[in-house]
Amino acid sequence: MGGDVGPKVTIPAIAKACELHPDVRFLIYGLEADTLPLIAAYPIVGERSEFIGCDVAISMEEKPGSALRRGRKVSSMWQAIDAVKADNAQAAISAGNTGALMAMSKVVLRMKPGIERPALACIWPTLRGESIVLDVGATIGITASQYAQFAVMGRAYARVVLGVTEPTIGLLNVGVEDVKGTDNIREASEVINELGLNFSGFVEGDGIGRGDVDVVVTDGFTGNIALKTAEGTARQITTMLREAISASWMSRIGYVFARSAFNVLRERLDPNNANGGIFLGLNGIVIKSHGGADVDGFTSAIEVAIEVAKANINEVITRDIDDMQDVLENAWAERLL
Amino acid sequence: MGGDVGPKVTIPAIAKACELHPDVRFLIYGLEADTLPLIAAYPIVGERSEFIGCDVAISMEEKPGSALRRGRKVSSMWQAIDAVKADNAQAAISAGNTGALMAMSKVVLRMKPGIERPALACIWPTLRGESIVLDVGATIGITASQYAQFAVMGRAYARVVLGVTEPTIGLLNVGVEDVKGTDNIREASEVINELGLNFSGFVEGDGIGRGDVDVVVTDGFTGNIALKTAEGTARQITTMLREAISASWMSRIGYVFARSAFNVLRERLDPNNANGGIFLGLNGIVIKSHGGADVDGFTSAIEVAIEVAKANINEVITRDIDDMQDVLENAWAERLL
Repeated sequence: MGGDVGPKVTIPAIAKACELHPDVRFLIYGLEADTLPLIAAYPIVGERSEFIGCDVAISMEEKPGSALRRGRKVSSMWQAIDAVKADNAQAAISAGNTGALMAMSKVVLRMKPGIERPALACIWPTLRGESIVLDVGATIGITASQYAQFAVMGRAYARVVLGVTEPTIGLLNVGVEDVKGTDNIREASEVINELGLNFSGFVEGDGIGRGDVDVVVTDGFTGNIALKTAEGTARQITTMLREAISASWMSRIGYVFARSAFNVLRERLDPNNANGGIFLGLNGIVIKSHGGADVDGFTSAIEVAIEVAKANINEVITRDIDDMQDVLENAWAERLL
Repeated sequence: MGGDVGPKVTIPAIAKACELHPDVRFLIYGLEADTLPLIAAYPIVGERSEFIGCDVAISMEEKPGSALRRGRKVSSMWQAIDAVKADNAQAAISAGNTGALMAMSKVVLRMKPGIERPALACIWPTLRGESIVLDVGATIGITASQYAQFAVMGRAYARVVLGVTEPTIGLLNVGVEDVKGTDNIREASEVINELGLNFSGFVEGDGIGRGDVDVVVTDGFTGNIALKTAEGTARQITTMLREAISASWMSRIGYVFARSAFNVLRERLDPNNANGGIFLGLNGIVIKSHGGADVDGFTSAIEVAIEVAKANINEVITRDIDDMQDVLENAWAERLL
């Protein structure tokens, strides 16, 4: 039901995903009136899915507390997450209200042992390929050992989706020198350093797009602002490019010749291609699609869900956390002293 | 002496500024051996400047504490700032070590009454023109009333450099709704709201480049990461565009036709055109050029200095702060309760 458009985007995207992935089945949770006519329009969706009619849909503007009260048990969002808990689904996907999705996911699935708070991880296109950036908006204000937990989860996620055995990890800061940043972030650097990972130390904002590291660790406040600033800058530059090109006949002719190049650039910058953030740290997979995603974008989010479900991301993360449990616990104990 | 290159950039830039601004004179502080030969190579610089040989130059990597100990009184950076204090100069400009420049500026010039901490403000190119973003790296971790002080200073700066009588002001946050963000930033929003300015509330990362507001207020940690992420994204996209264009003969031909459009884009994106951050909150004008600026870039920084010195930015800020002193003081007192 979620996203700026709702089932008119999500159902066609499911149809597309059905064609691309013949081994995948869907449980579709939504309001009957909005959803059933669309399912009827895409026969492949009817064949490969089960529809579960729900009484409540969470709106995009609703506060998490209200969503939890009003949507508990009865909303499509709650029931989709609950299907993961009941092991009827291997992943839940929503383009809906981020805060509500996170709050419900925490209540229904609960945090993984050893992880105190969830992180929203995204795949960020870079000059070298792709990197993982987390947290881009789930958790604001974290401790040094929570940064370390994010590093462990981001590493596990990168191992699965980037296919890198030992990903490089960087901590987002205002400078690369040891003395830079807050006490908290310097302490986080020390804790991560003790984990024995492929830790490169601090990385600055311009290092993300350059692809300096495979995994960029930050808190949800800074990560969200970095992500949206990058999206805004990309939109700004492509708008400026379009304005500059259409300003003269000569450059419009040039555009015709260079069209393939512009298409390559558009493809590389298309936010749909990198759509699908994952909530890490829960006992189950929950994928957040951008609310403004179109059919291709929501299909990408479904594909992320399929990929991480098949790779058993949660087992990878659990194993990695267990391996580092002692170090993380010591770090946590020290914080409490 | 500062910047990645030093006098080989700064002296030719001074020569250029001398040509553009016949009414401006320069005091040049530096090591004789590095500086004098370059001044000799640009006669106009010799005519319009006074050279003061110094014994110490602060290096780019030096920590602020060490810079203060080693550079006190004797360094070119200290003496340039001291010239502002002694009223021998109306502004100091450096492409050197940002942390050292800020630390020395605070020691030499001291904070303006009513302002607790300094902010580094930059001019950010947007789709609507230009906006002011502060703080982009001077002060990390600020209180609600310090956010409000930054808002007052940013407004004064925007009035001078953007020429807007009553600039719109936004507070950088992870969402535009009242409930978003940290307690601190929500409290900051309340304090700024009481000042009676043209306050638009929260703005998200993608609102900066869109030009949603004239003045974006944030703390030095978030602002620095937003600025560098935007710079990195701009570099990433122009690199991708170059790669895409050079990938085929057709698109290279297209490039020739569309060259004027690409030049317009390059001009609009050139970081040199927006070079020159200002430290706000001090009893005197100190301008920070990007360390990597070339001759055109450092010339831009000089021009910012000339513009704000002529506009008496410090008087504007002082007057604006005095006007709001009661509100700011009440907010500050409440923080202490």
